[in-house]
Amino acid sequence: MRTRAAVALEAGKPLEVMEVNLEGPKAGEVLIEIKATGICHTDEFTLSGADPEGVFPAILGHEGAGIVLEVGEGVTSVKPGDHVIPLYTPECRECASCLSGKTNMCHAIRATQGKGLMPDGTTRFSMLDGTPIYHYMGCSTFANHTVLPEISVAKVREDAPFDKICYVGCGVTTGIGAVNYTAKVELGATAVVFGLGGIGLNVLQGLRMAGADMIIGVDLNDAKREMAEHFGMTHFINPKNVENVVDEIINLTKTPLDPIGGADYSFDCTGNVNVMRQALECTHRGWGQSIVIGVAPAGAEISTRPFQLVTGRTWKGSAFGGARGRTDVPKIVDWYMDGKIEIDPMITHTLRLEDINKGFDLMHAGESIRSVVLF
Amino acid sequence: MRTRAAVALEAGKPLEVMEVNLEGPKAGEVLIEIKATGICHTDEFTLSGADPEGVFPAILGHEGAGIVLEVGEGVTSVKPGDHVIPLYTPECRECASCLSGKTNMCHAIRATQGKGLMPDGTTRFSMLDGTPIYHYMGCSTFANHTVLPEISVAKVREDAPFDKICYVGCGVTTGIGAVNYTAKVELGATAVVFGLGGIGLNVLQGLRMAGADMIIGVDLNDAKREMAEHFGMTHFINPKNVENVVDEIINLTKTPLDPIGGADYSFDCTGNVNVMRQALECTHRGWGQSIVIGVAPAGAEISTRPFQLVTGRTWKGSAFGGARGRTDVPKIVDWYMDGKIEIDPMITHTLRLEDINKGFDLMHAGESIRSVVLF
Repeated sequence: MRTRAAVALEAGKPLEVMEVNLEGPKAGEVLIEIKATGICHTDEFTLSGADPEGVFPAILGHEGAGIVLEVGEGVTSVKPGDHVIPLYTPECRECASCLSGKTNMCHAIRATQGKGLMPDGTTRFSMLDGTPIYHYMGCSTFANHTVLPEISVAKVREDAPFDKICYVGCGVTTGIGAVNYTAKVELGATAVVFGLGGIGLNVLQGLRMAGADMIIGVDLNDAKREMAEHFGMTHFINPKNVENVVDEIINLTKTPLDPIGGADYSFDCTGNVNVMRQALECTHRGWGQSIVIGVAPAGAEISTRPFQLVTGRTWKGSAFGGARGRTDVPKIVDWYMDGKIEIDPMITHTLRLEDINKGFDLMHAGESIRSVVLF
Repeated sequence: MRTRAAVALEAGKPLEVMEVNLEGPKAGEVLIEIKATGICHTDEFTLSGADPEGVFPAILGHEGAGIVLEVGEGVTSVKPGDHVIPLYTPECRECASCLSGKTNMCHAIRATQGKGLMPDGTTRFSMLDGTPIYHYMGCSTFANHTVLPEISVAKVREDAPFDKICYVGCGVTTGIGAVNYTAKVELGATAVVFGLGGIGLNVLQGLRMAGADMIIGVDLNDAKREMAEHFGMTHFINPKNVENVVDEIINLTKTPLDPIGGADYSFDCTGNVNVMRQALECTHRGWGQSIVIGVAPAGAEISTRPFQLVTGRTWKGSAFGGARGRTDVPKIVDWYMDGKIEIDPMITHTLRLEDINKGFDLMHAGESIRSVVLF
């Protein structure tokens, strides 16, 4: 079949919207009509050429929602008409990672997905002249239709609006999951969020949902404050206004019973390795946990004195919020539909596919939280 | 009263055995007759002058066992005649740290203990001319008699031999606790221990007790292999004999079900920050945990790419094995008496107090695992 897609022909160039060929689903695969897709910083990272694993031409996009049109041989978990969210972190439920019960990082199709290929080592997309077009993060949602492995598809309820739940495919789950699946924050906790962009806002509402008492937000931009408070932030620190942000957090969290101070949990949503160090060091001696979510530039390293760990702090990271895609993503959609979490205020712009490059411009200008493309 | 002690008069000089004054226990304090004490690398670290918090003159030693002779006003948890192990990590059961249930790092007397003082800000020891002698790590077990706060005393069974269970006061608990309290290693796990000295051997037997399947030891000295195997090591790697120790461990831990490889847990017992990085990076993508036990030189920093954490590895540390002194130390003594763990083969030398400097010489020469001074 033919479909319309925004194609990344080469690094550093705007996407080009065009007709492309799409082969139907092979065994174990699913053809999906994409109804909406978010534009994420990770798409921008790859399009810019900074991603060492980036390959071109490719159809980017990994934050979509749509409807199953056709299933290949042997597919049993979804059927035509099902509403689904594509997963860049699959869940095969059979590999050592899935079976460990300790991680969401399924490795069933890791090798081919990382190269922009389907599990059989080929692509389903091609240019009209036959040139193969690479898949991206196993999703390629910047196309009106796409093909995914069955294990990379989460079935969700049918009354959820595509233009909002597409954001669950990455940002919402990454933020809320980091709180609830990776850190397992408990009622009454004290937490700090560094970076109040789209991921940071979702960490904030994850903390509010988990029942954290003190939710400190840190950002260099005072304009982020209002939206952050809407999503649950109780205290704001602009590092420009304090001498030392770590000391500020430690002092803010001291109590009569606890003269030591420090946050129970911290989350880095900046990708800046110096901030990651602050995020670790502002946590509480004895039990503080710091979760790295942000993606650092290639080659950047985090560092600290090992004393920070020996005195009881834990440094970990979170990918896709620690969420198992097929198991947890449908629950997060339910949370949205039940009003436990909000998405609508974060979708600041909706665009047509023809205008997708405007979405990247809005991101660069810092004017959007999330732009969503509607098909 | 007067007692005999090995006094550290100044940094870098041998200890001097002499008569000193010792005041009796004040309210909440306990007078203990020390029967045996181990000589630990931490004593050496402070005696050498490398410890930025070291103060002199001081009575070092923090790995002792003895008998309560007298208790101060209000002491209820021990009485004269009780057999006890002094604790450099107290357990007040009343501070925010103790009450958190998340850490063993009681902070009730942290400020004074760090300065070599009793909780009231004074010392109980003095030279015969009246010059105060500082306490050390709240213990000062290189004296025939010492005074400790009640919260720094673990009561243990009376049939346990002092010359063995003194080692539970530091090394045994640090190693076994890191496995069982900090990492919480489960049956069937795969683990790596970097550095097969006294702490490393105790990590090994902790792993054996926890039921780990594959227990890999890493040391530059082939001579460590035999004793390590005695304590549970199943595979040995000398980094001199392999191209890359991280790759070697990852390959060794691959299985048909798990082509990714990596250890479930790793433990650094070297204090070398480069080894700490290897210890993190050899753990399994998705769920590997690396525990820093070794103490690094002042100013040294650990580093890694944050990608190591984002892809599911956890970096933490352990102090006194995460053990709550008054609660867990008596249980570890029971484990020894019940034959669940071994201590005897690690006590390679016993000395009289007069010969205590020989214990430091044996340590420097790498000839001892543990030297114990008997009073």
